[in-house]
Amino acid sequence: MSTLWGGRFQEPADDLFWRFHASIGFDIRLAQVDIRGSQAYARALQSAGVLTAEEAQQIQTGLEQVAAEFAANTFTLATSDEDIHTAVERRLHELIGPVAGKLHTGRSRNDQIATDVRLWLMEELPALAALLRALQQALAARAEDEIDVLMPGYTHLQPAQPLRFSHWMLAYFWMLQRDRERLQDALPRVRECPLGAGALAGNAYGIDREALAKDLGFEGVTHNSIESVADRDYILEVLAWAAILGGHLSRLAEDLVLWSSSEFGFVRLAERYTTGSSIMPQKRNPDSLELVRGKAGRLTGNLVTLLTVTKGLPMSYDTDLQEDKEPLFDSLDTLAQVLPVVTGVVATLQVVPERMRAALNEGLLATDLADYLTRRGLPFRQAHHAVGQAVLKSEQLGVPLSQIPLEEYQAISPCFGLDLYTVLDYQASVEARNSLGGTSRAAVLEQLRAARRVLESDTGDDLPA
Amino acid sequence: MSTLWGGRFQEPADDLFWRFHASIGFDIRLAQVDIRGSQAYARALQSAGVLTAEEAQQIQTGLEQVAAEFAANTFTLATSDEDIHTAVERRLHELIGPVAGKLHTGRSRNDQIATDVRLWLMEELPALAALLRALQQALAARAEDEIDVLMPGYTHLQPAQPLRFSHWMLAYFWMLQRDRERLQDALPRVRECPLGAGALAGNAYGIDREALAKDLGFEGVTHNSIESVADRDYILEVLAWAAILGGHLSRLAEDLVLWSSSEFGFVRLAERYTTGSSIMPQKRNPDSLELVRGKAGRLTGNLVTLLTVTKGLPMSYDTDLQEDKEPLFDSLDTLAQVLPVVTGVVATLQVVPERMRAALNEGLLATDLADYLTRRGLPFRQAHHAVGQAVLKSEQLGVPLSQIPLEEYQAISPCFGLDLYTVLDYQASVEARNSLGGTSRAAVLEQLRAARRVLESDTGDDLPA
Amino acid sequence: MSTLWGGRFQEPADDLFWRFHASIGFDIRLAQVDIRGSQAYARALQSAGVLTAEEAQQIQTGLEQVAAEFAANTFTLATSDEDIHTAVERRLHELIGPVAGKLHTGRSRNDQIATDVRLWLMEELPALAALLRALQQALAARAEDEIDVLMPGYTHLQPAQPLRFSHWMLAYFWMLQRDRERLQDALPRVRECPLGAGALAGNAYGIDREALAKDLGFEGVTHNSIESVADRDYILEVLAWAAILGGHLSRLAEDLVLWSSSEFGFVRLAERYTTGSSIMPQKRNPDSLELVRGKAGRLTGNLVTLLTVTKGLPMSYDTDLQEDKEPLFDSLDTLAQVLPVVTGVVATLQVVPERMRAALNEGLLATDLADYLTRRGLPFRQAHHAVGQAVLKSEQLGVPLSQIPLEEYQAISPCFGLDLYTVLDYQASVEARNSLGGTSRAAVLEQLRAARRVLESDTGDDLPA
Amino acid sequence: MSTLWGGRFQEPADDLFWRFHASIGFDIRLAQVDIRGSQAYARALQSAGVLTAEEAQQIQTGLEQVAAEFAANTFTLATSDEDIHTAVERRLHELIGPVAGKLHTGRSRNDQIATDVRLWLMEELPALAALLRALQQALAARAEDEIDVLMPGYTHLQPAQPLRFSHWMLAYFWMLQRDRERLQDALPRVRECPLGAGALAGNAYGIDREALAKDLGFEGVTHNSIESVADRDYILEVLAWAAILGGHLSRLAEDLVLWSSSEFGFVRLAERYTTGSSIMPQKRNPDSLELVRGKAGRLTGNLVTLLTVTKGLPMSYDTDLQEDKEPLFDSLDTLAQVLPVVTGVVATLQVVPERMRAALNEGLLATDLADYLTRRGLPFRQAHHAVGQAVLKSEQLGVPLSQIPLEEYQAISPCFGLDLYTVLDYQASVEARNSLGGTSRAAVLEQLRAARRVLESDTGDDLPA
Repeated sequence: MSTLWGGRFQEPADDLFWRFHASIGFDIRLAQVDIRGSQAYARALQSAGVLTAEEAQQIQTGLEQVAAEFAANTFTLATSDEDIHTAVERRLHELIGPVAGKLHTGRSRNDQIATDVRLWLMEELPALAALLRALQQALAARAEDEIDVLMPGYTHLQPAQPLRFSHWMLAYFWMLQRDRERLQDALPRVRECPLGAGALAGNAYGIDREALAKDLGFEGVTHNSIESVADRDYILEVLAWAAILGGHLSRLAEDLVLWSSSEFGFVRLAERYTTGSSIMPQKRNPDSLELVRGKAGRLTGNLVTLLTVTKGLPMSYDTDLQEDKEPLFDSLDTLAQVLPVVTGVVATLQVVPERMRAALNEGLLATDLADYLTRRGLPFRQAHHAVGQAVLKSEQLGVPLSQIPLEEYQAISPCFGLDLYTVLDYQASVEARNSLGGTSRAAVLEQLRAARRVLESDTGDDLPA
Repeated sequence: MSTLWGGRFQEPADDLFWRFHASIGFDIRLAQVDIRGSQAYARALQSAGVLTAEEAQQIQTGLEQVAAEFAANTFTLATSDEDIHTAVERRLHELIGPVAGKLHTGRSRNDQIATDVRLWLMEELPALAALLRALQQALAARAEDEIDVLMPGYTHLQPAQPLRFSHWMLAYFWMLQRDRERLQDALPRVRECPLGAGALAGNAYGIDREALAKDLGFEGVTHNSIESVADRDYILEVLAWAAILGGHLSRLAEDLVLWSSSEFGFVRLAERYTTGSSIMPQKRNPDSLELVRGKAGRLTGNLVTLLTVTKGLPMSYDTDLQEDKEPLFDSLDTLAQVLPVVTGVVATLQVVPERMRAALNEGLLATDLADYLTRRGLPFRQAHHAVGQAVLKSEQLGVPLSQIPLEEYQAISPCFGLDLYTVLDYQASVEARNSLGGTSRAAVLEQLRAARRVLESDTGDDLPA
Repeated sequence: MSTLWGGRFQEPADDLFWRFHASIGFDIRLAQVDIRGSQAYARALQSAGVLTAEEAQQIQTGLEQVAAEFAANTFTLATSDEDIHTAVERRLHELIGPVAGKLHTGRSRNDQIATDVRLWLMEELPALAALLRALQQALAARAEDEIDVLMPGYTHLQPAQPLRFSHWMLAYFWMLQRDRERLQDALPRVRECPLGAGALAGNAYGIDREALAKDLGFEGVTHNSIESVADRDYILEVLAWAAILGGHLSRLAEDLVLWSSSEFGFVRLAERYTTGSSIMPQKRNPDSLELVRGKAGRLTGNLVTLLTVTKGLPMSYDTDLQEDKEPLFDSLDTLAQVLPVVTGVVATLQVVPERMRAALNEGLLATDLADYLTRRGLPFRQAHHAVGQAVLKSEQLGVPLSQIPLEEYQAISPCFGLDLYTVLDYQASVEARNSLGGTSRAAVLEQLRAARRVLESDTGDDLPA
Repeated sequence: MSTLWGGRFQEPADDLFWRFHASIGFDIRLAQVDIRGSQAYARALQSAGVLTAEEAQQIQTGLEQVAAEFAANTFTLATSDEDIHTAVERRLHELIGPVAGKLHTGRSRNDQIATDVRLWLMEELPALAALLRALQQALAARAEDEIDVLMPGYTHLQPAQPLRFSHWMLAYFWMLQRDRERLQDALPRVRECPLGAGALAGNAYGIDREALAKDLGFEGVTHNSIESVADRDYILEVLAWAAILGGHLSRLAEDLVLWSSSEFGFVRLAERYTTGSSIMPQKRNPDSLELVRGKAGRLTGNLVTLLTVTKGLPMSYDTDLQEDKEPLFDSLDTLAQVLPVVTGVVATLQVVPERMRAALNEGLLATDLADYLTRRGLPFRQAHHAVGQAVLKSEQLGVPLSQIPLEEYQAISPCFGLDLYTVLDYQASVEARNSLGGTSRAAVLEQLRAARRVLESDTGDDLPA
């Protein structure tokens, strides 16, 4: 097989090794950014006097045609195309002849691939940020619609205190908001241009790297040619972001899987996001959400893959780094599938307020009863203890807290008075939690306003399209 | 989209969700084992009196045709084919009509997929064991050929003691031998047949599961229908095996990458397993080995993926489990590529004994000198201390140990005598380590004989083809 | 700081580095096995003629005293004790003088630590196997007691088919049985003695390694001195085993957390395995089980730690390998805590059959209805479809399947007859699944007998105490 | 055992479970931040009118004493102290009586622990940022000192092009700079105050959460009480940061381990950062660096631990989350040890320019020769090919490139002229790479100035002490 680096080689590559080594199977999706990078580099070579205007023009025209072939799906791979760079260059050579060979002047596949992946991320990450924002919008919209639905809130999966269902939806809004912020924080580190680093030592042709970076839409240039080709921390950061976001989504999925069970019955998924069984015709399985939950696995696995690959690698470029792309592509493709599915599930979710209401029981008001005693002067710890005894009494008598007679309460603590029964009310309970971030109507509305402000102030316009 | 489970559904599945959910993209490679499982199941249904002989025959003939279509690559997917099971059944229905619908009697995709993956593993794992054995054979053959080549052995990447190069090769032989044993230990757990577990509760049609298992080449049947469809520990075990093996290979790769550097120069890789540079024509890069080293990352990541997916899943089958196949396929495909490449590298490796010899220095004989003092009665700790001073003296004087005058030695310890100089010999050093597993010629030959015995006694015949 | 290796060093170790580097903080728990290994090595040195009987006796007596000090918790660490080996040797020297220095003849800390960890595992692993067996016994005992309790079985957390509660318990029995088998498979690889490998090249003092191995209770010796000190695959195998087992336990925990929720209410944990809330007195939190579920995280993390550490390490011993012990200790300590807690939870679990029964609904019998049609000649696919329509009808009419009038059924399929109503019975449903591994009473009793056989035939006696 | 939540419990906790469940063993290190949080909360309760001035004063005085006892190491744990919160409250009660019970009014351990960990991170992270900065300073200082030292630069561990040693050092400077930026980006997400979220539903006592947050040094408050107690993404982000940083350090360690080998010999570690061997007195092992490399394992493992723990957890607080602290503490403690060790190694590293120089060979100038041909009009690809033939010729003739006769060159390409020999110069080679980020003297000095600017502009003062 004839290759880019064949000059001094006397023996052809082993076939098995060739297939093992070739990355064209997965880096072909970088075709357009690879060509875009080459076009900018050709302009930079022209500015530096390495290419004549005519040569530069030939190269541009040739590259445009190659790009068009990829866009039209008419590009044909040759068996010698070991990666996207060689495929493009080989085709360019076929189209424009030896002048194609000038494009690689002072450039290495080492800085070229780093540039390609960063350009690709500069397209993909803002697109994912927009999908994330759409999910947040769906959550906020539903939270607004369902503002008056009450449900039990859980800790340890045991009913704890009454909550607004909206408050639960907004919990995820803020988790995802931080995911979106993390993504925005990662972008400046992605948007540094490594082109001009060469194989590792820098560029010897007087390229103006800052102009080149600007031409390609980068924010600036990398500072050091060695690490420009050797480090992948910007990919690790993106993979870690994806894994954390995937974890958030797995929890949202878990909540909804639980709540769409017969036993909870708090929500029903739209049929179009469920599947049936090949053997049990009564089934309506939440498998959109189960898959969302499961995808957290691969997002974690992909991160581990690259952390393990890069551990202990010597400077500068090693072929091990070629293993960065598949986990990256897989994680971002996964999120591009998962986010719209979750948005669809949230937007079409049917809430069943009567099942939520039915699941409320007076045990959830125990804290309110303790608060009542506290307001009457009992230290909280003693109040907590007294209410614990009331709960026990309620279990022994087989009646809810509101039906335990006053004298039984007073036998537990003389602080109890007749007005204790007025706090045993779910509405009163949620309204009492009125501090910032609490579950009262006013606090949730305030939270919604904050959510709207965040969505409006951050239109995604600061993320380059 | 019309589906298997459409009876009670009134709304079509969301397109995006459909693509998200469909597994046909990756489980299509199970086509042949899926059909094989169906053929055996049809026989079992016939034995149980559920199918008439004629129906059974129709189904067999139809399935043979479907198998032939897959084999000839003429099978055409329909958009409704969400997975391999539905694809096969849909096609069977086209070919033989409604009787196709009887094949699924008492069977669920839950037990069907578990059966498919196990059947697939029963083909793949022995094939990988054979590749592993071939690599061991290559190591043993090279170890035999290079029995008299000496090199420095390293701890902490510092030269420690002289070694036979063969001894280093055999180190990997034994690591891989344990990998092969682990694989053999895993097989009986793979070779339990889950078919007949149904969706989760068992089979209601009087199927003879033991006969069915035997028909398919399993060793026995699973004991409990719930866990038959719910557990994936046999896949986790295989992924863990792959990760541990991948780690071993990453270390072999690291050693050879180091040794093929200019600075070590102990080995040269065959050209066909190296690549050149797109910018630096003098380069000969060991990137076959770098990739082998890097692949340890994905093998670890794939294991983490499934460990994370299965963590905390409720009984029994959840769609999250669909995420088991891609990491499994990827890990085994990776090994099927990596193992022959490593075997090729080892078999064609050029050893450079003169560079190894040149890297030996008398510091490596310090232990021998300490042993000398010990044999003359000095406690080892004091001997060690005395030799430490001799090494320091050698550095101060700028001469090797063998050129430090006797009086200097005796100033350090009166135990030194004239015969000390005879132990300062590399050949003597390796020969002294003559206990079982040591680096003397006799011990390494004994080790080789043991290796041969292992390879011969275990021909791989106990692994079903 | 004066050290073992100080002979040629002119500069003391940096304090910070010393603390960073010292492993005594965690390897001190290996004190007894380290001493046991040294006692056997002293006997081997005596047999090889390196120690006189008197010297050997002095060393044995001294080591016994050191062991006694550790046992009585009176051993005092010196600041120079960087690891357990130096601590023991330093103390031995204080007790018996320079002859202590002879113990290290031909032995290195490299083979010593590998021996210590293996000896420690040879004690810990059988103990864990016994804990695992105890949990299996608890599951089998409860399964026997609750043989007649029915509950809904779930797939996708949706009710699927009726099951015996016993059948669910036994599902975990078999998962744990495979965990126990995996452990037994790992043991022979642990029980190979590396002592005599020296630093890496073997032993030069004529030690009889096979006798030494036997003396220490090993099954045999390692074959190659290099990998004896360099590989840690037996630890990785144990960590992988622990992670897989931890995953099983996380699923058991998840099931019971769900089932002890108010909404399911199938079980109640004994109070002694629950905790209350500091603020909500009504809570009874299943946090024993939540912790069990969470521990799966660290078991996975510990495995990843060592896979990452060992990736790409050059031969032979590198200090990175010192990082093997903390994850190993942590994983095994975790299991030693988790297993008895789970056993206690299972043994004291209160089953609430009436809640389970109440959760059964006729949708669970849909498969039985389809089976009914199938037995009347309808292909299963058509039967499945017909029952799907019946389920839809049942939802539309708001009545259970058993209350849909016959004419409605016959409008769906003429195959329905009056006897259809007899299959709509939970008891009949479970009894129908009577094949091996199914949920019928007879099949579960057969399963229980198989479980008993496994427990009886494998008393754990084959695991060395 | 008497506990906080004992009111309704009739059965004591199982001992084994108690030990399993208690977190005091590791959360005791949060004592001071826990008390600080309580003091601020008492002030908030007073402002809200829940505590009188006198009660508030009693509590403050009591808490000060508890803090003093922890500081003086005189605090005695009781067996009932299950966690740091109960320990502090129990002691406070002993000191000031029942008024202590008022401190918990409206507060839960759920919001308390989230507050504690964030306060702790607000101390630890800036301290780690300072350690990171110190390492960067050491790198910059050494880079300045060694500006004129040349060495081979490597790709694939094969010599590629000549580099300034300073340029290599600065490569790590910029990797670490991004790590420091990532840390700064994470801080605002850490510095949100969850106190006032209560168990999950919010605070019912009119606490001013914003004032409380300000009092404790937070930047703001969390927006939603549910996720305030349920999410741990800020910890995951820190663990991911630590793993990425650990990866960078593992690569620095790998480079220096390689370079301090006999075969490379480019650097010598200061003795105080090396250790010797217990059996080989000549050894000087770089085990400070090996441990640094190995620590990347546990940093990755700790991240995986928490990603796995939090996968699929239902809202809101579950005890699984208790498993967040040990990996967090371990990762940050590890970095607190590792960073100063690496700084010490870098600061004291002895560079061996003559070994570096000796490792330069003319193959490293092949790119320069290709550049020469390119400047003479040959397209780069043809130039690359021509030089490849020259390299092959050089190997065949056994002479360096500079000694191949001109006619041989011209037989390869007529573009070669006599001046080709002037480019075969290491100094000329590095000076040619003069673009931004390249390895020429001017470019490296420019890089150093940029590094200085970064260090000066970011004094760490924006990180709260």
